[in-house]
Amino acid sequence: MTNMTKPWQDKLRKVEPYVPGEQSKNKNIIKLNANENPYPPSPKVMEVLKNMDTKKFSMYPNAGGAPLVDALAEYYGVERDQIFTGNGSDDVLALSFMSFFNSDKPILFPDITYSFYPVWCQLFKTPYKTKAIDDNFMINSKDYYEENGGVILPNPNAPTGISEGKEFIKDILDHNRDCVVIIDEAYVDFGGYSCVELLKEYENLVVIQTFSKSRSMAGMRIGVAIGNKDLIGVLNAVKNCYNSYTMDSVAIECGTASVKDDEYFRQTLNKIIASRERSTKAFEDLGFTVFPSHSNFIFVTNPNIKAKDLFETLKKENIFIRYFNLPRINNHLRITIGTDEQMDILTEHIKNYIKNH
Amino acid sequence: MTNMTKPWQDKLRKVEPYVPGEQSKNKNIIKLNANENPYPPSPKVMEVLKNMDTKKFSMYPNAGGAPLVDALAEYYGVERDQIFTGNGSDDVLALSFMSFFNSDKPILFPDITYSFYPVWCQLFKTPYKTKAIDDNFMINSKDYYEENGGVILPNPNAPTGISEGKEFIKDILDHNRDCVVIIDEAYVDFGGYSCVELLKEYENLVVIQTFSKSRSMAGMRIGVAIGNKDLIGVLNAVKNCYNSYTMDSVAIECGTASVKDDEYFRQTLNKIIASRERSTKAFEDLGFTVFPSHSNFIFVTNPNIKAKDLFETLKKENIFIRYFNLPRINNHLRITIGTDEQMDILTEHIKNYIKNH
Repeated sequence: MTNMTKPWQDKLRKVEPYVPGEQSKNKNIIKLNANENPYPPSPKVMEVLKNMDTKKFSMYPNAGGAPLVDALAEYYGVERDQIFTGNGSDDVLALSFMSFFNSDKPILFPDITYSFYPVWCQLFKTPYKTKAIDDNFMINSKDYYEENGGVILPNPNAPTGISEGKEFIKDILDHNRDCVVIIDEAYVDFGGYSCVELLKEYENLVVIQTFSKSRSMAGMRIGVAIGNKDLIGVLNAVKNCYNSYTMDSVAIECGTASVKDDEYFRQTLNKIIASRERSTKAFEDLGFTVFPSHSNFIFVTNPNIKAKDLFETLKKENIFIRYFNLPRINNHLRITIGTDEQMDILTEHIKNYIKNH
Repeated sequence: MTNMTKPWQDKLRKVEPYVPGEQSKNKNIIKLNANENPYPPSPKVMEVLKNMDTKKFSMYPNAGGAPLVDALAEYYGVERDQIFTGNGSDDVLALSFMSFFNSDKPILFPDITYSFYPVWCQLFKTPYKTKAIDDNFMINSKDYYEENGGVILPNPNAPTGISEGKEFIKDILDHNRDCVVIIDEAYVDFGGYSCVELLKEYENLVVIQTFSKSRSMAGMRIGVAIGNKDLIGVLNAVKNCYNSYTMDSVAIECGTASVKDDEYFRQTLNKIIASRERSTKAFEDLGFTVFPSHSNFIFVTNPNIKAKDLFETLKKENIFIRYFNLPRINNHLRITIGTDEQMDILTEHIKNYIKNH
């Protein structure tokens, strides 16, 4: 088949997919390009896995995600019918776009943000409008006062890492009472402000989080939505129109073990936050501007360095970081916070790069 | 929130979800209502699970599903770019509806079939038309000669269990060269005809299978699509517009182990087929009409028994089978093939029911 001319080909969907961070088969690389956690999940997760009986694999998993949903309800201090779990937060976000954004008016989100948002709009034919973040890469809340079909904001934002506080989120919510507002808190555990507490005040708010970053479980695919029970009910109905069982038995059980081990969770977060502060200083010492990050990555730029060239040089040296060839941020780099050892190797390589350029 | 009147509520999706077979928390039930396999997955799956290192959970899984895709390519004797894996065959089917059925003309499928098909049409706003199966519950291939936006047929059909052979499938394909034809082979391993061999002749054919039934892995959520590389390419692009990583690391590794243990797979299938033939005879002896099944369930009716009443009586006795309150089949029952022991208990209960009515 060489050219797209046959009648059955007219019926195929034409789409531009989201491109995730590169994967490499080489195990000796330093991988700081996908905001993965350098530490393993809680040892309790390993324990659950080792004690799991594969006999139960022959049965369908619990369609509602229990007991993970129960553990999360307790963790967030909400009712269990306020919690939805899905196959990674991308699944939860995709289902949320289908569930909540059904208006002829455009939904609003920042021009520089998680690059999957416009992809879902394309897939679900959702009209949208982006709002430019300012020159300091801050979101202007007034941009979201106009009439719209919904609002989605990541907090902290990606790939900038910049976080907003309670008053900012309340301002957005106060000016958007007629649509659903989604706050995508993928990175919130690394020191951001979580607006779960605002669910009591705003019935049109949905908060989405993930186990992929702070809980070291990107490989298990677990995402969460928290909202009022009517919104969560719609999300469940749409999910049951798509795939009744999105989370397998292992993900449900391992996720539950992670939520119950809060001590390990806090320890891991503190280690990453400490490495982030240490790395921020190291990059500043190398002449980089480092945006204030409340996430597990830093977003950096250096007027004397071509970001794309540094990115490609490091890749040849088996160090993977993230470069976005996009307007406004095409001289910036997003660097996941790894272990101190990994970050030291990275900064050494950058020092050498600077010396040779 | 009592009545749906607020502006943000107008933007919510209104849908009628698919209703899966009931789940019960009682572990002492005999569960023959969801076509689950009564035998565990291959012991190799358990081995993989026990040897798995949760450290790798912190990394994203392979977005393309390798090494599972490689194992399946070898198993089916096709190229690896002809294989797509997803989060259960419901995920694969949902993505296929989005990928392949983009026409103003209606897609066609039988009136009595997997009840998820019209749900996906509703969700994706795909026009469809159903074609009545005949009084013997056979699909008439001539019904699928008319112009359409696509065809989806389950073979064997559900909930009838009736299978069609090569000539029937070729007839459908020969009359549908201008659209994508999906053959949903969820139950094919239990003695049906698989049309994977026809992929060489028909570039518009997609075959979908699942690990949930024959491979005893409903709890792991693994589905497969096999087709020409252009169709599989579109499916991957649409998947990457929805959720880049639908299958977690454990599902990928455990699925691979299952595919590689063909001996265990064949043994399990043979046991279920033998139990099906034995149960067919037992039900016929009780006065039931049993449709000829090539699946892991039987579809039965008895003119002297009210199916709904028998279904409800058995439920009270902790035996779960499936009753569909739908036109044409509302005096029928779908019974999953369990172990011989489970089937004996079931027929004993039915004997008692008949005695008392």
